[in-house]
Amino acid sequence: MKLRVNLAEKGYDIIIERGVLSRADEHLKLDRKVLIVTDSGVPREYAEAVAEKCKNGYIVTVPEGEGSKSFAMLEMLCRKMLDKEFTRSDCAVAVGGGVVGDLTGFAAASFMRGIDFYNIPTTLLSQVDSSVGGKVAVNLDSVKNIVGTFYQPKKVLIDPNVLSTLPHRQISAGLAESLKMAITSDKELFEIFKSRKAEDDIVEVIRRSLLVKINVVEQDEKELGLRKVLNFGHTLGHGIEGASGMRELYHGECVALGMIPMCSDSLRCDLIEILKSLDLPTKVNGDLEEMLRVATHDKKRDGGSISAVFSDEAGSFEFKKMPIEEWKDLMRERFSPYIER
Amino acid sequence: MKLRVNLAEKGYDIIIERGVLSRADEHLKLDRKVLIVTDSGVPREYAEAVAEKCKNGYIVTVPEGEGSKSFAMLEMLCRKMLDKEFTRSDCAVAVGGGVVGDLTGFAAASFMRGIDFYNIPTTLLSQVDSSVGGKVAVNLDSVKNIVGTFYQPKKVLIDPNVLSTLPHRQISAGLAESLKMAITSDKELFEIFKSRKAEDDIVEVIRRSLLVKINVVEQDEKELGLRKVLNFGHTLGHGIEGASGMRELYHGECVALGMIPMCSDSLRCDLIEILKSLDLPTKVNGDLEEMLRVATHDKKRDGGSISAVFSDEAGSFEFKKMPIEEWKDLMRERFSPYIER
Repeated sequence: MKLRVNLAEKGYDIIIERGVLSRADEHLKLDRKVLIVTDSGVPREYAEAVAEKCKNGYIVTVPEGEGSKSFAMLEMLCRKMLDKEFTRSDCAVAVGGGVVGDLTGFAAASFMRGIDFYNIPTTLLSQVDSSVGGKVAVNLDSVKNIVGTFYQPKKVLIDPNVLSTLPHRQISAGLAESLKMAITSDKELFEIFKSRKAEDDIVEVIRRSLLVKINVVEQDEKELGLRKVLNFGHTLGHGIEGASGMRELYHGECVALGMIPMCSDSLRCDLIEILKSLDLPTKVNGDLEEMLRVATHDKKRDGGSISAVFSDEAGSFEFKKMPIEEWKDLMRERFSPYIER
Repeated sequence: MKLRVNLAEKGYDIIIERGVLSRADEHLKLDRKVLIVTDSGVPREYAEAVAEKCKNGYIVTVPEGEGSKSFAMLEMLCRKMLDKEFTRSDCAVAVGGGVVGDLTGFAAASFMRGIDFYNIPTTLLSQVDSSVGGKVAVNLDSVKNIVGTFYQPKKVLIDPNVLSTLPHRQISAGLAESLKMAITSDKELFEIFKSRKAEDDIVEVIRRSLLVKINVVEQDEKELGLRKVLNFGHTLGHGIEGASGMRELYHGECVALGMIPMCSDSLRCDLIEILKSLDLPTKVNGDLEEMLRVATHDKKRDGGSISAVFSDEAGSFEFKKMPIEEWKDLMRERFSPYIER
């Protein structure tokens, strides 16, 4: 199945197909120099499957984790391409999760002012989320994605078969981002979650999630407005993620929790049931005040207000700009029941 | 005087005005955080003149020279903005030559995926050349501009008064790039050079050079074709610049020499006279074979051919694609008389 992302002068296709990883050459132009970037947590055979289809493929494996989204790794990838005498007509392929995609995409965007970039996301989270949108970046100190650009891939290959090697917990974390899109923008996808069929119908979940994201990105490529809807659940989510002692939670799990207070009461009941069915957390052990402090830390720069996304009913959302203190009060009221100490 | 650069959705103005450096706030939006980047070779008072007009201006001084176009300096600038809590609404200003402009522009392009960038070029070379075109980059190892992007400034301020502190030799090197544009694209500008009035009429020379470059860039923003005309004299020029023992020559001086064999016989006579009048070199001490080798080193990647720019008559040019060996033979024939050993 093919989905088209239409953007001004740089649209591209997303191919969703079981086994496509081993037929990468049918979709990607690999008869040139190809930098294949993966990380130490991705099964080695995925990058090798791509390399097998290249005459001049060079696999680079970066360490697993956010730490690889660094200037040092960016420079390393560029130097590798320089050493191998890559030209502007060569290309880079990311084989891995969001970290590999963001890093590789930024290197491809910058090397010789831009070479072709292909993305083969191998986690559910990166398949439904970071494979669309063109946001590529590295981190600086502990600040995520602070240095980067917008750079669209030439093509994205999604092979649902790779999900079979993913731990259940990572699948659930990916589904949390998909659930986010269902709540704000796709009632039918929400019904799939409600009827407990998401994991059985994973290709349909990926497809519908991507359609939501594509629709948003097509309307707001540079994140000037509408795209903020994708932050649903993320403000408090980031606060939970960044609070001390929370390191053991996945990003998707934090987003799952972060969505709870952004829903109306009736929607929240459904959400809690769905989270439980997916083995996503519905309680968190920690200090709410610290979470709220971390969540609003970078909002002070925006003049002390928060642009929050709420949903009263699955498939719909509302932006509300409110003072930080008002938002914090609302979170205290609505999220306290979900805190365990 | 104001020149307009029209580009798809990101056009900008170039202000050419004596004394504009001390009135920067009249043209730039400085009532926000402003990173002012300069280098140790630029008179300190230029950056300070800009800082005086800012409430929150932060001057960063990098070492003079190409070495500052590095990943390390790029990271340093980004970290400085992060430390000072810059947001996407803040801005960066380059006050210096091409090195400062290229480095600052790339940092502005990448920090938070792009903040406003202003360029205040303070050398003649950067005023007539690198201030237009949007090419920003850093070097890697000894390879120039290998990592970068296209990023347009929000505004360019050119203050011809700053040229009074430039050594005569640097003025001449800047005029060489201007002469390049005259030869390929502006017969009237060429006449100014022929009548020995370029230095007296420097504002007109800057204006006409910029108009040539603007015209080319507007037609070929991403360097897909026409823009190669700006490489007139640069292929051999780079060979001269990169050959051993040539480190003492300025870029503009190498371009001056590099233009000699690209002109027809009659045009070459005029060119030599003009170069002499500007105290630019018309002879070079070195090994021609090494120069040719360096000049064609990176062309091997393009399938062994060179896309060379020739001019038969001032104000006109011609692209000729030729095999490397043919080009070398032509250079041997036409440039040997200008080699001293």
